[in-house]
Amino acid sequence: MQLHLMSWPEVETYLAKRSDIIIPIGSTEQHGPTGLIGTDCICPEAIALRAAEKVGALVGPTFNVGSAQHHMGFAGSMTLRPSTFVAVLFDWITSLTHHGFTHIYLLNGHGGNVPSVEASFAEVYASRSLSGHKDEELRPLRCKLQNWWELKGVMRLCRELFPNGHGSHATPSEVAVTQFVYPDAIKAAKLDPKIAPIGPIMDAADYKRRFPDGRIGSDPSQASVDRGEKLVTCAVDALADAYREFVTS
Amino acid sequence: MQLHLMSWPEVETYLAKRSDIIIPIGSTEQHGPTGLIGTDCICPEAIALRAAEKVGALVGPTFNVGSAQHHMGFAGSMTLRPSTFVAVLFDWITSLTHHGFTHIYLLNGHGGNVPSVEASFAEVYASRSLSGHKDEELRPLRCKLQNWWELKGVMRLCRELFPNGHGSHATPSEVAVTQFVYPDAIKAAKLDPKIAPIGPIMDAADYKRRFPDGRIGSDPSQASVDRGEKLVTCAVDALADAYREFVTS
Amino acid sequence: MQLHLMSWPEVETYLAKRSDIIIPIGSTEQHGPTGLIGTDCICPEAIALRAAEKVGALVGPTFNVGSAQHHMGFAGSMTLRPSTFVAVLFDWITSLTHHGFTHIYLLNGHGGNVPSVEASFAEVYASRSLSGHKDEELRPLRCKLQNWWELKGVMRLCRELFPNGHGSHATPSEVAVTQFVYPDAIKAAKLDPKIAPIGPIMDAADYKRRFPDGRIGSDPSQASVDRGEKLVTCAVDALADAYREFVTS
Amino acid sequence: MQLHLMSWPEVETYLAKRSDIIIPIGSTEQHGPTGLIGTDCICPEAIALRAAEKVGALVGPTFNVGSAQHHMGFAGSMTLRPSTFVAVLFDWITSLTHHGFTHIYLLNGHGGNVPSVEASFAEVYASRSLSGHKDEELRPLRCKLQNWWELKGVMRLCRELFPNGHGSHATPSEVAVTQFVYPDAIKAAKLDPKIAPIGPIMDAADYKRRFPDGRIGSDPSQASVDRGEKLVTCAVDALADAYREFVTS
Amino acid sequence: MQLHLMSWPEVETYLAKRSDIIIPIGSTEQHGPTGLIGTDCICPEAIALRAAEKVGALVGPTFNVGSAQHHMGFAGSMTLRPSTFVAVLFDWITSLTHHGFTHIYLLNGHGGNVPSVEASFAEVYASRSLSGHKDEELRPLRCKLQNWWELKGVMRLCRELFPNGHGSHATPSEVAVTQFVYPDAIKAAKLDPKIAPIGPIMDAADYKRRFPDGRIGSDPSQASVDRGEKLVTCAVDALADAYREFVTS
Amino acid sequence: MQLHLMSWPEVETYLAKRSDIIIPIGSTEQHGPTGLIGTDCICPEAIALRAAEKVGALVGPTFNVGSAQHHMGFAGSMTLRPSTFVAVLFDWITSLTHHGFTHIYLLNGHGGNVPSVEASFAEVYASRSLSGHKDEELRPLRCKLQNWWELKGVMRLCRELFPNGHGSHATPSEVAVTQFVYPDAIKAAKLDPKIAPIGPIMDAADYKRRFPDGRIGSDPSQASVDRGEKLVTCAVDALADAYREFVTS
Repeated sequence: MQLHLMSWPEVETYLAKRSDIIIPIGSTEQHGPTGLIGTDCICPEAIALRAAEKVGALVGPTFNVGSAQHHMGFAGSMTLRPSTFVAVLFDWITSLTHHGFTHIYLLNGHGGNVPSVEASFAEVYASRSLSGHKDEELRPLRCKLQNWWELKGVMRLCRELFPNGHGSHATPSEVAVTQFVYPDAIKAAKLDPKIAPIGPIMDAADYKRRFPDGRIGSDPSQASVDRGEKLVTCAVDALADAYREFVTS
Repeated sequence: MQLHLMSWPEVETYLAKRSDIIIPIGSTEQHGPTGLIGTDCICPEAIALRAAEKVGALVGPTFNVGSAQHHMGFAGSMTLRPSTFVAVLFDWITSLTHHGFTHIYLLNGHGGNVPSVEASFAEVYASRSLSGHKDEELRPLRCKLQNWWELKGVMRLCRELFPNGHGSHATPSEVAVTQFVYPDAIKAAKLDPKIAPIGPIMDAADYKRRFPDGRIGSDPSQASVDRGEKLVTCAVDALADAYREFVTS
Repeated sequence: MQLHLMSWPEVETYLAKRSDIIIPIGSTEQHGPTGLIGTDCICPEAIALRAAEKVGALVGPTFNVGSAQHHMGFAGSMTLRPSTFVAVLFDWITSLTHHGFTHIYLLNGHGGNVPSVEASFAEVYASRSLSGHKDEELRPLRCKLQNWWELKGVMRLCRELFPNGHGSHATPSEVAVTQFVYPDAIKAAKLDPKIAPIGPIMDAADYKRRFPDGRIGSDPSQASVDRGEKLVTCAVDALADAYREFVTS
Repeated sequence: MQLHLMSWPEVETYLAKRSDIIIPIGSTEQHGPTGLIGTDCICPEAIALRAAEKVGALVGPTFNVGSAQHHMGFAGSMTLRPSTFVAVLFDWITSLTHHGFTHIYLLNGHGGNVPSVEASFAEVYASRSLSGHKDEELRPLRCKLQNWWELKGVMRLCRELFPNGHGSHATPSEVAVTQFVYPDAIKAAKLDPKIAPIGPIMDAADYKRRFPDGRIGSDPSQASVDRGEKLVTCAVDALADAYREFVTS
Repeated sequence: MQLHLMSWPEVETYLAKRSDIIIPIGSTEQHGPTGLIGTDCICPEAIALRAAEKVGALVGPTFNVGSAQHHMGFAGSMTLRPSTFVAVLFDWITSLTHHGFTHIYLLNGHGGNVPSVEASFAEVYASRSLSGHKDEELRPLRCKLQNWWELKGVMRLCRELFPNGHGSHATPSEVAVTQFVYPDAIKAAKLDPKIAPIGPIMDAADYKRRFPDGRIGSDPSQASVDRGEKLVTCAVDALADAYREFVTS
Repeated sequence: MQLHLMSWPEVETYLAKRSDIIIPIGSTEQHGPTGLIGTDCICPEAIALRAAEKVGALVGPTFNVGSAQHHMGFAGSMTLRPSTFVAVLFDWITSLTHHGFTHIYLLNGHGGNVPSVEASFAEVYASRSLSGHKDEELRPLRCKLQNWWELKGVMRLCRELFPNGHGSHATPSEVAVTQFVYPDAIKAAKLDPKIAPIGPIMDAADYKRRFPDGRIGSDPSQASVDRGEKLVTCAVDALADAYREFVTS
């Protein structure tokens, strides 16, 4: 169930029974010569929508421009400053809690979002912790961030499918998922070197010097539609399990 | 061409030839008993993608949670505070101009966004106007906001199709567009009164008192897939023309 | 009645009977070779004070530096960034509602303020809509923005008085109003071309290229004290009517 | 010379010769049972305009709502939060320095503004000090805050005119100045006690408990138009001297 | 008693009896060729801790980076922008009032902090004054700023010990206090001129031109451990007295 | 070498040779019935100062109030909102880079700070990545966050010393370090249960329900001065090694 495809009475009916929601969160950033700029949105959206069907959960809009300053040396990348990010996610969560949502689950597609998301959660919690309201006046709130590649079993499958050159950005696993979802948008390009270098992440200029074509440690040429499907299946099952547990926590 | 389905070298190639982009901008808000919460995103996305094919333009990610505080009395609505909105759109535009985009065209699906979008443009322009940089140091920048229903010919068609009960929120025209795009998500509900009341917009409590089921002045039961298709066709043609003119301005 | 010329017990007495206030809002910006930098403050102040006498309303301080980044290429212009603007107007309105004002009417002298004012209203309303307070805990609040030149009958009179070269910035009508109010500050300068060019508004550098002497589409040499008086009379009557209706809404 | 009554070419001419400006800064706040809510604007405006004539200086718009949270228990008072205040004054000063003003002199009417004004100056200076620009790339900037009652000779005259009950808020001296400027707005009310209590300033609730009619330590019934004129004359002379020195510093 | 060396049950016990706390507040900034960069923290910390023992008060963490933009021309200086300063001190005070502290006493070591501290107090008070809460719903709050050198008797002692060349930055008195506290960190350097120049404070570039080695009007070579001890003794006694009065106010 | 005990010429001399600095970063928050509120500052300070002696590095002021909203149910805890945190650390780092520091190493004592610190780094980097400056115009900048308990060998030692009941808040290892540093501030209290419960961290009310005495999973009664010394020795050696590598990266 997608929030965007529901009417408000349908959401009201949903809220009469349960108060959880999944928010896919990604980024708009380069993913190497063959990866899609929307990769980090496409992966958590695809997984969230499929898992949501299994568990009857609602999927909200995708938070689609994230924290990606280090990719700004590559055309098409977009970023929020972390201070902006915190303000936005604060407003999203405040909107949802206003309606009575108590369990908010962010399925994340971009490692660079993690600090800003966790800081946003703390910003929301702080507004409660410093509110002066008595405990019993506040409805419980549980926010959770889950990177899709850290769902149970997913990294193991990644290592099986791509024992070499998985890397950490523009990985064959994320590229494979996007190939499965958008088979018409598969790109070809010569990758040189085959496996990209690794290193730390700082600002955009430093990033481009270290990682000239945008990849970190990866050889995404190993991606395929089939492998993407395997990854989605694995992640969907794991998310369904994890989410059921989350909802009852 | 969707930015999210491109690689960075493809964007670089695009930017070597032109520097314009379309950003659909919508809202996540109630649209009456039968309208979709995502209506204001779905309409400009559908129109922008189709027009972009005609004119070879790039379509960026959808700005999907907007300025909708007045809808917060209805389950599922989400909003940014205008101060947050300005910070976000400032970051989006700054990201795009960083890569050399000079013509940024927002196709808007939600009237309530207009002030925040125009304020964001002024925030971006102000950062240039107060920068102390000489004119010749600044690459030109042209930002434009276009409501899809104000594209040439669209309101005339709306009045033809729905001479009574078009209204201004949860209109039969926007509902029709979403029916055309998502025929599987068509909702049925009794509308009482058939044509909703009209009035001014203030805060959420006032809104809900004036407009108990969320509609303003509309009878969306007149919507149909066919009428949606007509509207999309009309809007796409008009957008293609308007955009060609914009790009050369 | 001007708030600045009253004592607090007088305001308390006023508030015991009614809860409305007019705030003139303008800008500090160039108005061509002959227009006053304070034009956009002087016009709504003059009209508001005269209409307020008719309807017994209170007139608050003038919001005198507005959203005018595009005029920064001309000496003496001042601007707020829209983000600042929203913070300030939020504080002004919050101060007024704190005392029990429920009907706040901004009489505006500058088109460029419109988005920032409307965004500020939404910021105020959003703080209520997201407050979690029950409807009945919130005193009603109605904020309204009215451009003085859009008061009933005013534009018609402008067209009658200045059928050619009215334009949209440094117009003969606004210049005439300032001549009526400050006859000692009438300026003379050669206008070349007689009627200024028209075009879109972007940043300050672009503005100065398009409109080298600051005017847009206007020939303010047609202004006169008499014409200013006619305009003020017309606007004052229209404002008195509009305001009476507003107060009872 | 008032900025608001000049055209941009006149300001340009002024800036070709000198680069100083006076900004009156006040507050919109209660001044006891007989004082005007605009007192803190009226005093510095009256003094600044008269002194400016003597020294040929430009007077900018009045910063008319200041830092007055402690007066919010009295009807009609308005306040900015200090964080807002700093943002606004930053924008005002940035606008002025953009045109080449280098000497910005704030003539202040409200003691409560002092910290926010000084913090704003530091905010402006900090943007330069941390800019990374070389010294020679920055045009010098000198901002000065002057309380009008601390101009040379003014406090001595206050003590002569009002040896008892001068106090520190709603003082007979500031009330006298407003009586001189607006003789038609003189108020009468019984003051009980004749001389108001004194004490520290904290929040609005505390203020109202300590100072039930709003005055601090003052007996403003001693004010008169004549005394107001004496004070204005004294302050104008002192300001003219102080300003000449400032401009050449 | 230092908050940092207590457990939470100990603080709870303290709060059951009293609700006051001392916060030392300083700066991290150059103090001339021989002064320590931490001078403005070291002085109020040393005095606060000793006085707190006498009066049984709690001493919180030191606010250690302050408002010091004008010192940024000298290596090692650090500063907050005033807007940041206000946000931080707001959070500190909000944290303390959350636990029931009602009397918050800042012992200050840096003149440049004064506006930002006072603005922060007003920001805290404003959040109460505009809260709409009834008086009786708000626990009283009293915030006080005290510069250590303005404690009773201290300036007199400074003038006795250093009749010439006390100055206002990198003074022999503050250097003496740091020598008393950190005798192992005494520096020697030739001071030329012996007594530094005086003048106004603006931005960092201007500061460095006026005060090439960082001192203002001072000859800190007169400092000694003994004199530092005398100053600390004097200030501690005065603070103990002042604080006892504060707590009962 | 502590920045606070140096003069500016000494810092200038340091910067002529190297450009790295260590900033201890902690929190002011409850650490269970026997832990010190300053624990998270004391640990990284003690380790940083000792390691800095070995490697000749400069140690800056301690960032002493961090992100601790979840502890606000326990007396004496203080917190910044994450949005404030990011603004402060941005200013600290901007101050340091202004002087030419290029390698900034935060030794952290509080897990809850991690997201806000990483978000702050991204905020700093983003200001560079979006600056429009060419790569070669920007001096390199490397910021690193290191939790002291994750220094090489430390967790292994923790597990050896405290195989049961180490837990994650108010751990015997951090308590031991504070006992070593402040042996006079060792607290005794009955711990019931001996080993505290574990669970997730959300807002302050939830935290206090889950962890009634503040500890998470720990039995800090196992702490001792000797064990604290062992931990400090281990951490200091590891930090010296890690820092040498950092400086040359």
